[in-house]
Amino acid sequence: MSAVDPAATLQQLAFNADGLVPAIAQQFDTGEVLMMAWMNREAVAETLATGRVCYWSRSRQGLWRKGETSGQQQRLVDFLIDCDGDTILLKVDQDGVACHTGRRTCFYTAARPDGLTEVAMVQVSPEELYKK
Amino acid sequence: MSAVDPAATLQQLAFNADGLVPAIAQQFDTGEVLMMAWMNREAVAETLATGRVCYWSRSRQGLWRKGETSGQQQRLVDFLIDCDGDTILLKVDQDGVACHTGRRTCFYTAARPDGLTEVAMVQVSPEELYKK
Repeated sequence: MSAVDPAATLQQLAFNADGLVPAIAQQFDTGEVLMMAWMNREAVAETLATGRVCYWSRSRQGLWRKGETSGQQQRLVDFLIDCDGDTILLKVDQDGVACHTGRRTCFYTAARPDGLTEVAMVQVSPEELYKK
Repeated sequence: MSAVDPAATLQQLAFNADGLVPAIAQQFDTGEVLMMAWMNREAVAETLATGRVCYWSRSRQGLWRKGETSGQQQRLVDFLIDCDGDTILLKVDQDGVACHTGRRTCFYTAARPDGLTEVAMVQVSPEELYKK
């Protein structure tokens, strides 16, 4: 996606008391929901400017350029805002796996009548992912 | 989906300081991301017990049985939890439209190089939706 001036988008977004908005990442072609993370104003601006998805890490309290350590980057395909401006939907092209556990998606645990069930397999070991 | 005992799921979920977890609703067959809302423990338990999606309305501070007023209910198809238990992904079968604006999805505004762009049409007028 070509660079987007973030001004109009930032004006449209309703950041919470911590200055954050949740952002859902969805693989653009398969429709798979990969993960949810948070963005502050700076992460939104950087993502729109560079076309590489950048979140805000609440645990590290810093910008989190997805794939920085693991190499599993997210290329931005489309950037959508919901009706009340308090959630972002990122259509992305995910390199490899999105989850730090080595699974394609973070949503791999299903609540089923017969109990919690794993529905996605580990594709890369976390050791492999983070040794790079 | 058959009723699910919520105990294991509630134990797995990491509710925030307000006792809430964000829940993404995705149409189970098309993969369309419809909306994001919030659930408290009671909304999770009711959703798993009844198979009809129930959120927590932060504005009304009460349970929000999706479709109660508009008739546009969400039938639960699968209930997924992410790796750190702080986000829910609901696979649903959405009756009609998910958005209070009468659009199928709440994510109808795209940030594009040529400005904010509407990418989903109104399918039912809000007057029609809420007169029922």
